[in-house]
Amino acid sequence: MDSSGSDNFAARLAAVATETEALLERLLGDKALPGETVRPERLLAAMRHAALGGGKRLRPFLLVETAALFGARRDGALLAGAALECLHCYSLVHDDLPAMDDDDLRRGQPTVHKAFDDATAILAGDALLTLAFDIAARSEVHADANVRVALVTELARASGLGGMAGGQMLDLTAEGRFAEKRTLTENEIATLQAMKTGALIRFACRAGALLGKASDSSLSNVDRYGVAIGQAFQIADDLLDVEGDSATLGKATAKDAAAGKATLVSTLGIDGARARLDALIAEADSALASFGDKADILRATARFVAQRKN
Amino acid sequence: MDSSGSDNFAARLAAVATETEALLERLLGDKALPGETVRPERLLAAMRHAALGGGKRLRPFLLVETAALFGARRDGALLAGAALECLHCYSLVHDDLPAMDDDDLRRGQPTVHKAFDDATAILAGDALLTLAFDIAARSEVHADANVRVALVTELARASGLGGMAGGQMLDLTAEGRFAEKRTLTENEIATLQAMKTGALIRFACRAGALLGKASDSSLSNVDRYGVAIGQAFQIADDLLDVEGDSATLGKATAKDAAAGKATLVSTLGIDGARARLDALIAEADSALASFGDKADILRATARFVAQRKN
Repeated sequence: MDSSGSDNFAARLAAVATETEALLERLLGDKALPGETVRPERLLAAMRHAALGGGKRLRPFLLVETAALFGARRDGALLAGAALECLHCYSLVHDDLPAMDDDDLRRGQPTVHKAFDDATAILAGDALLTLAFDIAARSEVHADANVRVALVTELARASGLGGMAGGQMLDLTAEGRFAEKRTLTENEIATLQAMKTGALIRFACRAGALLGKASDSSLSNVDRYGVAIGQAFQIADDLLDVEGDSATLGKATAKDAAAGKATLVSTLGIDGARARLDALIAEADSALASFGDKADILRATARFVAQRKN
Repeated sequence: MDSSGSDNFAARLAAVATETEALLERLLGDKALPGETVRPERLLAAMRHAALGGGKRLRPFLLVETAALFGARRDGALLAGAALECLHCYSLVHDDLPAMDDDDLRRGQPTVHKAFDDATAILAGDALLTLAFDIAARSEVHADANVRVALVTELARASGLGGMAGGQMLDLTAEGRFAEKRTLTENEIATLQAMKTGALIRFACRAGALLGKASDSSLSNVDRYGVAIGQAFQIADDLLDVEGDSATLGKATAKDAAAGKATLVSTLGIDGARARLDALIAEADSALASFGDKADILRATARFVAQRKN
């Protein structure tokens, strides 16, 4: 791709971020939904602190651009993306809690339990998780209830026991929190990361294909793409933890090594991890081959994910 | 109703509890769902600790019996009831955390964070909440995807910001956790309780009607019934906290007064609270009037809820 491709990528990424922010602002406004008497002020403020004003909105972007590949309506995809972002933000709030990873900063701001307190952070995470399913089920996401039900099912599987929450459990276990620490194999690390961070990224891609009623073979290709960039995302994240600058990242670095976290950078080394990223970009390209030029934006996204600096 | 009505009630309540336990045992088994690689052992054990082996399963019972009133399939209603029970159990796990109500005992057993640890309890609650939506969206609940989507939406509204989680936030606020304590008005207490405990009980009744594709007027009557017994449930709970025996209840008593919690027993007095319970039974009966004898089991349930001793 030429440089106009990259410019186009940056502009489209920024557009989805802006639209997602506006949607979340509306979804987390003080207007009560049908059936609601009160939206408790402190809880709403904590949810807003968690979900507004930050992040690249990578997951909504993947969802929107995959949906576009299959001609799905953009407004529905943006709403599904907002649901996914609520779910992602809940996971950050709970992971940051003192009982979990104990982080004070997130995107350069105090984490929710620092800005509020632990009880409020637990509830804000719970309510964001719940809101994600509320949003995913709305008719504005897609006219066909079967599609919305499929989204709810896949979102739940990606984020529950066998997905993100399970991955966080494996991560805490791998740190030696509950028994003697042992070194994970490369396969075990890959499984842990596929669950903890990969599952939601993969869901983003699959959800776009579901909204566009993609064929089984197209869904399968998009799924391969999602798996590849999910892995690339985590390896890039682990490289940033080793090499990054905490001022640029807005969070502490070198925390993984300090916590004894298992990462592929520790098993492959920095050069090995970079080579793996190149292989994952090639795998992402291969998965997109059948879609031709229309998938250029997703190709650019794979490079962005693998090479990101913050 | 005569005594055979009560016997019938006890038998039916026990039947739903047994069937719900069997369903939860299967849902929380070690058999992986499609797409799952691993079900992390410690997390699954904590979810099982939270959801299995206890409770009257009142919410599933209300859902199943309301569904029966409208001729819905029992197996679908039981599955929806299991979803609701997962959601209820998540709320107990998180409410018991040290950062929240700090309870060590639940149904005479150590709470999840005591049996495991805080991080595992947070994740087990998250995963149970997520599983609730996974289950509610399954085709075995109802053949019509529109019905399942309606269940997901109503379950999310009942349990999120404007429902159960919001009610817990109001309760912590009322205890004076975040600012100077002030005495709530009777209306404020009613709103808090309608959100914190009423919303899920009301949902149970509405869900049964949704599964049975009840008419709007029937749904509205069932809704009135659900609101009444939700209030009765909470008042009975508050009376038990004042008058009950911790050995029978399997949890600490007189905690509410110690925590300075606002209850209707503290504003109405014990006799006033008992009179309110009688009025709520009358309201529940009135809401069921149009259903004739078929609703006898729900009438018996209202009395059980208002007069329960544990």
